[in-house]
Amino acid sequence: MRAVDLIRKKRDSGEHSREEIDFLVSGYTCGDIPDYQMSAWLMAVWLRGLSRSELAALTEAMLYSGEVLNLSDLPGKKVDKHSTGGVGDKTSLILAPIVAAGGLNVPMISGRGLGHTGGTLDKLESIPGFNVNLSLEQFRHVLRECGMGLIGQTAEVAPADKKIYALRDVTGTVENIGLICASIMSKKLAEGIDALVLDVKTGSGAFMKREEDALRLAEVMVETGQRMGKKVVALITGMDQPLGRAAGHSVEVIECLEVLNGRGPADLRDLSIELSAWMFYLGERTKSVDEGRHLAANLIATGQAREKFKQVIKLQGGDARIVDEPNRLPAARFHADVLSETPGYVMATNCEQFGMALAMLGGGREKKEDAIDHAVGLEFRKLIGDPVKKGEPLATIHYNADTRLAEAKNLVARGYRIATDAPRDNPSLIRRILGA
Amino acid sequence: MRAVDLIRKKRDSGEHSREEIDFLVSGYTCGDIPDYQMSAWLMAVWLRGLSRSELAALTEAMLYSGEVLNLSDLPGKKVDKHSTGGVGDKTSLILAPIVAAGGLNVPMISGRGLGHTGGTLDKLESIPGFNVNLSLEQFRHVLRECGMGLIGQTAEVAPADKKIYALRDVTGTVENIGLICASIMSKKLAEGIDALVLDVKTGSGAFMKREEDALRLAEVMVETGQRMGKKVVALITGMDQPLGRAAGHSVEVIECLEVLNGRGPADLRDLSIELSAWMFYLGERTKSVDEGRHLAANLIATGQAREKFKQVIKLQGGDARIVDEPNRLPAARFHADVLSETPGYVMATNCEQFGMALAMLGGGREKKEDAIDHAVGLEFRKLIGDPVKKGEPLATIHYNADTRLAEAKNLVARGYRIATDAPRDNPSLIRRILGA
Repeated sequence: MRAVDLIRKKRDSGEHSREEIDFLVSGYTCGDIPDYQMSAWLMAVWLRGLSRSELAALTEAMLYSGEVLNLSDLPGKKVDKHSTGGVGDKTSLILAPIVAAGGLNVPMISGRGLGHTGGTLDKLESIPGFNVNLSLEQFRHVLRECGMGLIGQTAEVAPADKKIYALRDVTGTVENIGLICASIMSKKLAEGIDALVLDVKTGSGAFMKREEDALRLAEVMVETGQRMGKKVVALITGMDQPLGRAAGHSVEVIECLEVLNGRGPADLRDLSIELSAWMFYLGERTKSVDEGRHLAANLIATGQAREKFKQVIKLQGGDARIVDEPNRLPAARFHADVLSETPGYVMATNCEQFGMALAMLGGGREKKEDAIDHAVGLEFRKLIGDPVKKGEPLATIHYNADTRLAEAKNLVARGYRIATDAPRDNPSLIRRILGA
Repeated sequence: MRAVDLIRKKRDSGEHSREEIDFLVSGYTCGDIPDYQMSAWLMAVWLRGLSRSELAALTEAMLYSGEVLNLSDLPGKKVDKHSTGGVGDKTSLILAPIVAAGGLNVPMISGRGLGHTGGTLDKLESIPGFNVNLSLEQFRHVLRECGMGLIGQTAEVAPADKKIYALRDVTGTVENIGLICASIMSKKLAEGIDALVLDVKTGSGAFMKREEDALRLAEVMVETGQRMGKKVVALITGMDQPLGRAAGHSVEVIECLEVLNGRGPADLRDLSIELSAWMFYLGERTKSVDEGRHLAANLIATGQAREKFKQVIKLQGGDARIVDEPNRLPAARFHADVLSETPGYVMATNCEQFGMALAMLGGGREKKEDAIDHAVGLEFRKLIGDPVKKGEPLATIHYNADTRLAEAKNLVARGYRIATDAPRDNPSLIRRILGA
């Protein structure tokens, strides 16, 4: 078998056998197939597509390129959630403690933020001392102790994905449903889970801006996971405006603590409970999703989820006092309000611009190796449907350096569309559920 | 400007500006843009295509990536011919002496054979001592002395093409009309010529098997050359059977000498005269193509073309005695006939199989660095339309080692299709003329 023949096959719309996909993935991972052949193949895939069976083969080849966690010695089902990413999307920090407090295992391997979206690992690292770089052995220990763990992708997990993702990033082959699916599913299934709940975002702040694209991605991920014997559902959820009221790192942790304390914004609270409920149901902890909702709400009300979060912070080396004293989290030195220039109603927001403004303030990264400022953030004072007076704050910027403040302010202001009349319909947060 | 953005642009069917093409070609040539980005871009180009102005920009960027010969100090027009390659295609060795003997300059930079097609350089190297690796200075000297020169691509000429071609070869991006055009035209125009005659082959032994593909390639090459201020015509010619009766290296040189001696196969003689005639006309040596035909025939008849060939062999270090004593050329030790198993008429030949049989005998190469045997060859005793008896030789194989002889014999035999009746129409060798 020669790589060049496989490139030509895909270029000419051919369908690869499982052996051919294995040859490409294992050859690339070990360095036998050079970057320049893989990138030509990726571009051919981008333009010609992958069939469902090619996609399953690709996902499995990437999954088995590294270590697959065997958590069979842990009692109870192992479940996880994955979100395709958005602005202010912080549900992982809420639902993982809820679900672990409810008795299931949540072995969560997460990513960092890139571009305009935030990443769970970055948010966690705003907690002083919190270590996301555990070895798989340490991770297993934390899981055994408290039923949950929150780490980043290690070298042992899906190395093919790591290498392929880095190549896609510089060869214009990122935004492809098949390749995105294989990347996500190979990493998530390496966690050794029984069930997975997918939160596929759509709207101005999502990678998949159009609902039909989100739907297609959700479909292929659900099918790929189910083909591999896992329970998988996908919720298509709106990302036309930030989730909750905060975007950043420590500001988002604070908002999560509010929800875990029984308060916090309704949209964030509702979505966290909904996702937890599906995890309880797929993990066979409850007989129905509705029973899952009640369980999740109860675990918040009794403070058990909050205590679970404290426990995992301690186990991963973090300062658990932040749960009771959130002012121990890094805070920005300055605040600046973005004021509305006209009266009216918030008609729409451009979520991606908010994310870009945050990155501009030092809270995001353009390249993977960029350092970030955990203290900066955006606080949304008005969201879609809210009435607003002229001169009233739309958002508050938390910042440390004013080098690019004007630019960031401008982006945030332009991210709001104000109209004379209130928007007629407020689309629901949860649009569709697939795979149930 | 970033390479990844240009890859995405082409991927999404965008049209590049001249600056963008320059950025890619110069960046890749100097090593700033890595192979893996170039190969992703090439695959996007393969699948999305290039507009005429992108193609002109690409050709020019590749042309000016290296040295462009300035032959303005040589009196007389500079003309050349390029063939897209076939089996037994040896016209360069005939027409270059004819045209130089007629008073024009022929600064011919040629390639080596690859796959099933032969290369001019390999044929020339069957002449003892003939040096195709002249520096540009030596080349200029030979040209000044005798009005012609026959060398290979030097490091100074179109280095971008060299690097891009090597990458295309291993990334499944060879067979694309735009990329082929840019590769050919950038090299040919680096010769500093005024006019170019293209011989675009079509049929079983050509790269472009379908006439419509050959036509499209011819069109874009003619247009690209004319946009750059050159006189260019393209002849679409048949390659459904070998040109002449010999395929190999020394056997082809011998056949060329026969034509230069006023004998030889009619098809080879006719095409050589036709191409020479167009070169005379475009180089303003004659007022019409027909006058060019007469001039070419006359230069053969008077022996002037033959003497010119002797002269260039001497100037390039070769043994010019081969012109009078062809038995000084390397000859294979053994001959074997391929016999017809049935009586009838030769209906069709699969020229590509003949080329592959030749490579198998050691007369071709699969990789660029392979050594070749100049003595082996095929002699076609029957061609399309010829009657054949059962047991009569279809072809004679000249070989030195019988390791793969049976396989080669088999390929040659299978390359002949014998039918009961004579084929109704014998398609003309010259199908179309473009750009005139």
